[in-house]
Formats: sequence, C-alpha cells, structure tokens
Amino acid sequence: RHLGIPQPVPYLTRLVSFLTLLGVVAALFIFLIDLAVHGIEAARNQLRQLVHPALGFGLYLLSAVALCLLSTFWCATLSKEAEGSGLPQMKSILSGFYDRMKDALKVRVLFAKALGLICAIGGGLPVGWEGPNVHISCIIAHQLYRIPFFRELKRDRSLRLQTLAAACAVGLASSFGAPVGGVLYSIETMASFYLVQSFWKGVMCALAGAMIYDLLYTTPLVEAFEGTTFDPQDVGRVQIFLYAALGVLMGLLGALFICCVRGIYEMRMRRYPGTNRYFLVGAVATVSALVQYPVRLFALDPRAAINDLFRAVPLKMTDNFGWIELVSLPIVKFLLVAVSLGLPLPAGIFIPSFLIGAGCGRLFGEVLRLVFGAAVVPGTYAVVGAAAFTAGVTRALSCSVIIFEVTGQLRHMVPVLVAVLLAVIVGNAFNRSLYDTLVLMKQ
Amino acid sequence: RHLGIPQPVPYLTRLVSFLTLLGVVAALFIFLIDLAVHGIEAARNQLRQLVHPALGFGLYLLSAVALCLLSTFWCATLSKEAEGSGLPQMKSILSGFYDRMKDALKVRVLFAKALGLICAIGGGLPVGWEGPNVHISCIIAHQLYRIPFFRELKRDRSLRLQTLAAACAVGLASSFGAPVGGVLYSIETMASFYLVQSFWKGVMCALAGAMIYDLLYTTPLVEAFEGTTFDPQDVGRVQIFLYAALGVLMGLLGALFICCVRGIYEMRMRRYPGTNRYFLVGAVATVSALVQYPVRLFALDPRAAINDLFRAVPLKMTDNFGWIELVSLPIVKFLLVAVSLGLPLPAGIFIPSFLIGAGCGRLFGEVLRLVFGAAVVPGTYAVVGAAAFTAGVTRALSCSVIIFEVTGQLRHMVPVLVAVLLAVIVGNAFNRSLYDTLVLMKQ
Repeated sequence: RHLGIPQPVPYLTRLVSFLTLLGVVAALFIFLIDLAVHGIEAARNQLRQLVHPALGFGLYLLSAVALCLLSTFWCATLSKEAEGSGLPQMKSILSGFYDRMKDALKVRVLFAKALGLICAIGGGLPVGWEGPNVHISCIIAHQLYRIPFFRELKRDRSLRLQTLAAACAVGLASSFGAPVGGVLYSIETMASFYLVQSFWKGVMCALAGAMIYDLLYTTPLVEAFEGTTFDPQDVGRVQIFLYAALGVLMGLLGALFICCVRGIYEMRMRRYPGTNRYFLVGAVATVSALVQYPVRLFALDPRAAINDLFRAVPLKMTDNFGWIELVSLPIVKFLLVAVSLGLPLPAGIFIPSFLIGAGCGRLFGEVLRLVFGAAVVPGTYAVVGAAAFTAGVTRALSCSVIIFEVTGQLRHMVPVLVAVLLAVIVGNAFNRSLYDTLVLMKQ
Repeated sequence: RHLGIPQPVPYLTRLVSFLTLLGVVAALFIFLIDLAVHGIEAARNQLRQLVHPALGFGLYLLSAVALCLLSTFWCATLSKEAEGSGLPQMKSILSGFYDRMKDALKVRVLFAKALGLICAIGGGLPVGWEGPNVHISCIIAHQLYRIPFFRELKRDRSLRLQTLAAACAVGLASSFGAPVGGVLYSIETMASFYLVQSFWKGVMCALAGAMIYDLLYTTPLVEAFEGTTFDPQDVGRVQIFLYAALGVLMGLLGALFICCVRGIYEMRMRRYPGTNRYFLVGAVATVSALVQYPVRLFALDPRAAINDLFRAVPLKMTDNFGWIELVSLPIVKFLLVAVSLGLPLPAGIFIPSFLIGAGCGRLFGEVLRLVFGAAVVPGTYAVVGAAAFTAGVTRALSCSVIIFEVTGQLRHMVPVLVAVLLAVIVGNAFNRSLYDTLVLMKQ
C-alpha cells in the first residue's frame, strides 16, 4: 500500500529515480571527502617519516595548525551555516521550520562544509564526519530538485520533508555502511511523529548509499570499519549485569561530557568573549597536535583505533596499545573532543563518541578480565561501551543498530541494547542530548 | 527528551514497570505455548515410533484430525475473534478503531487463541504463531491495565495506543528473539504516522521479551532458530544481480500466493457456502497429515527445517533433504499453507512464509551452484529467499531485520535488503498485502 499502488507509474518512476540518485550521489560525495582526508593523513605521515624527527615534528605541528585554520577560514568566508555538526539544523528543518532554515541548504554551505571537514579531520582534530555528512546529504537532496525531471516532485511539501528524512538516513548510512541504523536514526530525529510512508523511501535511499559504500570501501585506499568475530560464548549470559553497569556508567559519562562541552563553551564566552576565531582554532590545533603526536593509538585514524579496541584478542597480543595507552586514551580524547566541539568549524559527534566509549569499555573489560579471568572478552565490552557512550551523548537508541551494522554481527545484541537503553535513561535524568544543548548554547 | 525529563518520576516508574512486566509476561506466555506445542509434537512422534508402522500412521492421522478439530472447537465456543492471524485486527485498533474493536482484547479471546494455536500447530497444520502471538501480547497489555498500580496510565488514550504498539513489538520479538525487527514491524503496522515517543517504549518492551527468549530458548526443551555462520566470501559481491533476481521472483510468488489464498477462500464460499467448520478443518487436517507424513523434511518443526535450509553446507552433506525433497517442499507447502490460512482457527503467516521462501531460495541456490560452481553458497540464497518471500506476502520491509536477528549476523545485509525491497515493489504492482486481503475477504 505504501509502495505505489495509489500512485501513477510516471510519478513513482520519478520518485524511485530521485531516491536512488540521491543515495548514490550522497554516498559518492561522502566517499570523496573520505578519500581527501586519507590523502592528507597519508601525506602528513610520510612527511613525518621522511625527514629528521625534530623537523618531522615541526612539520606535523605546522601542517595541523595550517589545516585547522584553513578549515575555519572556509566557514568564515563561504558560509557560517557550515559550522558545527549540522544535525541540529536538519532537526529543525524536519520539525517544520523549513522556510526559516532554508539558508542552510545552499550550495555554498555544501562546499564550506565539505572543505572545512576535510581540513579539520586532516588536521588531526578529533571530530567526526557523520553529522556533517547528514547535512551534506540534505543539501544534495535539496539541490537535486533543480533537475527538471524532478521538479514536479518538489511541489509536494510533505514529500520534500520525507526526502530530507531519507537524506538524513543516507548520510548516516554512507558514513558507516549502516542502512538500517541510518533509517532508524532518521525516525528518532523527528520531533514528534514519523510518516510511515517515508519508511520505504528512507530504506531505498539508504540502501543505495550502503551499496556504494560496500563497493568502494573494499579498496585499500581508505579505512573502513572491520567486522568483529565474537564467538557465542564470548558474550557471557551471566555477564549481563556487568554490561548493564557499563551502560549506566556510560550514561553518567555522557551526561558529564555534555556538561563539559557546555561549560567550556560558556566559560570561553564569559571570559574571552571577542576571541578571534583563527587564534582560537590555532590554539586548540596546537594542543591537539602536541598531545596526540607521541602516542600511536591517539594519532591513528579513529576507525583504525576503534577496530583495534573491538578486537577479541587479549591485551598482550594487540600491536597498538598497552595499559598506559588504554588508561590515557579516554581521558585525553574526552577533553580534546569536548573542546573541539565548540570550535567554529564542521564537527561531528558520533565517531569521537564511539572512540571514547570503545576506550572506556575496553578498559572496563580489561579490568574485569584481571578480576574474573579469561571468561571475560574485553572486546565485547569495547563494543558495548562505544554504543552506550554514544547513546549517552546523543540519546538515540539507534546507536545500537549502527554498532550492529558496523561490527557485522549480532552476538552482542542483548548486552548492547540493555546498555544503550540504560545509558539513555540515566543520561536523560541529568540533562538534554548534546544536539539540543548545542542548539541552546549558540542561541 | 523522549525518555522522561518532562514526566514526573512516579509516572515514569509506573510506565517502565508496565513495559517491563508486559515484555516479561508476554514472552513467558509465548514460551509456554511453544512448550505445549513441542510436548504434543514429541508425544505424537513417540507414538509413531513405538507401535507397528501401520498402526503408527493411523494414530498419527487420527491425532492430527482430532487436534485440528479441537483447535476450531475452541474458537467456536470461546470466541470467534480468535480465528485467523490477529494482526489485521491489531492494525485496525492501532489505526484508531479502538472502541469498535475492543471485543478482540477480552480474556476469553486470549484463551481461545492460545489453546487453538497449540492444537493447530500440534496437529501438524503448517500455520505460524507470530500473528497470534502479537494478538496475545496485545490482550495481555490490555488486561495488565486492570492492576490498580497501572490504572492511572490507562486514562491517557495516546499512551494506551503506544503500549499496544509496544505489545505488537514484543509479540514479534518473543516469537523470533528479534527485538529490533519487532519494533520496526510495529512501525510499519501503523496506518499513517508513528509517534516517535513510542519508539523507546517499544524497544524497552521488546528487549524485556527478547531477554526472556534468550534465557529460555537455551534449554533443549524447544527448538530455536540457530545462527548462521557465513564467511564474508560466501556472499559474493558480483552475485548481487542473482540475489536481486531471486527478490523479483519472490515478489511474484508472493503476489501469486495472495491470489491463491483469496481464490481458494472465494471458491469455497461460492460453491460450498454453508460448509460445517468441523468438516472443513477435518478434511484439510487429513490431507495435510497424508501429504506431510512420508517425508521427514515436511513433518519437521518449521524452525528445524528452516535451520537446515539455511546451513552453508553443500547438498550432499545435509542429513534431512536431497533434490526430491527440495523441489517438492515449496510446492507442497505453498498449497497447504494457502488452504490452511482460510480455515476458522488461529493461523500466523510469517513462519510458513519463511519456510516456503527458504525452500525456494535454497532450490534457486542449488541450481545456481550446478551452473556456476562452488562460488555459490545455496544457504545464503535460502536466507535471502525466506526474507523476500515473506516480504512479498506481508509487504513489510522489517522482514529483513527479523531475518538478520534470526540468523545472528549481517554478512548478507545488502543482498537481503535489495531482495526484500524488490519483492515489496513487485508484489505491490499486483495486489495488496495478505493482511489487507484477509480483511477484505472476510467482510
């Protein structure tokens, strides 16, 4: 009933072409951004190894600062709408403030967002790309309506919102290769109700994006999330209380994280109200480069680091980290991310949250392993922690489904769902989601 | 924001207790039904083996007919509301016809449904239990409001519908151990729009049910779905066109199946309008027992048969079936199920559809393996076929997620989603979903 019987065939053809094209174009665009980021990261690492260590460090620091300054430069000159995650703006548009927020869907915002994002991540700031990717997908959806073939679709205002919801889904789906999680997230983004008709539209669009993701990320050009391979007995049924405790802990930490982001931003506004954006970004980029340079795990692409933390092998068999790195990772990233999210440049929240959560969870799991022995597989705690911390920050239950799709299996379904639900409940007892907080902060 | 800040703590406590209790009680009730079914099945099989073959066959046939007659007897005496799947009625209630359909939520319907279901499946009719389970969960939700502690919640009409949606989710979740699929299905069941607030309620309730499922189905007392263990290379990326072709085929077969169900029912009504219900059920039960008795794969519990078909081992290594069984299974089950769904007794649609689809898909895959060689893993085609045929019959995209959760992994995510989407589109080009057709038929 939802898929077309009452609709005439030419209309349906237009709609299906639109959704498929949107999925493919958005996924390709997101892939190109990823490719550019990896090009910059690879070039910077090469530079670091080719020359004398001291000079290498100098170049590393200099390139970090230069790239971050460039990132905020794009936002300052092209469009200030490109700053931040972009998800809060999309949420406002989907809640009905379409006409008031239209400016956020212009082509210049697209370029500011893409260029700013490439420079910020390439410059080593611990920011994510899924919020900006959602924003970019929505702009692409809005601009695709200009094609004469699709103009007829634009007249239907309800359909316009539905395609924007589908664009949200594909933005997330193409960032992670997670079509179902993307569609679920787009449902949760809605303020009050969700049109059931838009469900198949979201699935179709996100699936087109996920197929492109699936095709492109097999190349060794860019990092992708690896699937985990937990055995059934790795996720112990009696350990459910430990997973639940981790969920509660992550809910508390998520709420604390939101307090920190807000506190840092407000302190800055009160004490140094008129600070120049370039000075601000330059200072944070310097600190970030200085802190992340010495430790391999910190400087790694976040996906690679998350893959390492998720692995089911014991600590002594991992290449990239030991106890010291494991204890310091969550603390360092927690503070750096909290500072970075207030900066005037494109910055997503999911990936850094995954990393912090995975770090906390792995640490929790390794400690439990010391106490209870080999029955505890710390990799499963890293997975649960990643989902729960992200849920504690975003208050979205669909984080769990995204984690399922990223890890490619469902052995850890019940622990992840329990921890995510608890993290959301505990977090909501203290404050609003990070997105709502960011909107309130910047008003 | 959805999870409680604006709500006072006592209210939230009540709500959370209600949802958890609903999940636990519904899952336990569903488990007990399963246990009773397996008790009957085991007793009948024992009887068959203990005595002389001819006598064994006689007892098998006699018990099948007796149980099926008993099944329709419960519906005739206790409540006729218990006949059929129950999902169409729940759909009407959720669409707002609460007051008109209230009779379907009485306690006597619960008993008629449960007893009728146990007898029908125990008697060997190829009917499913998820539609009846959803109905049963909704009745439990409705009756739990009688507890004084929850009476306050009942006043809120919107909340009442939300908890019924959560009950739908837990009914499906506890039938398959599929919480996310259950919640998604409850979204798709909605006629036009879905309240985003009900999302976390559905997840919490379905999760409680899934945890009980997870706990109870480890006992060897009852069959459960086994996880599949496909390797990444089992789901070949170039085979996507073959999976898509299977999806289209399943969409066509699904539409044909709906035509058959309708055709058989209408022919019966035209030619033999006043047929006695016991005569009708007795005749179908006799045919079903005669056809299913000789072949081990046919008489198997549908879950065990589906597990066999999903396995990644080649045909000659499977114990339960060869080419003859594989070719005849889809044909026999297709016709038997189409006849059974029109009978006046509780009858679900998901499991038989899974079985028919898995049979068709496995056959498709085995033929492809003969043509293309060992690169084709027929088990993956069985999984895709099961999801796609069910989607072709129910027109619900969430079939894909249920299959993911049943198989416990996501290696086959893209093929399943593509096939399911195509099956729904192709099916919708011909007729309405089976649920809508059943509603129209019985008016």
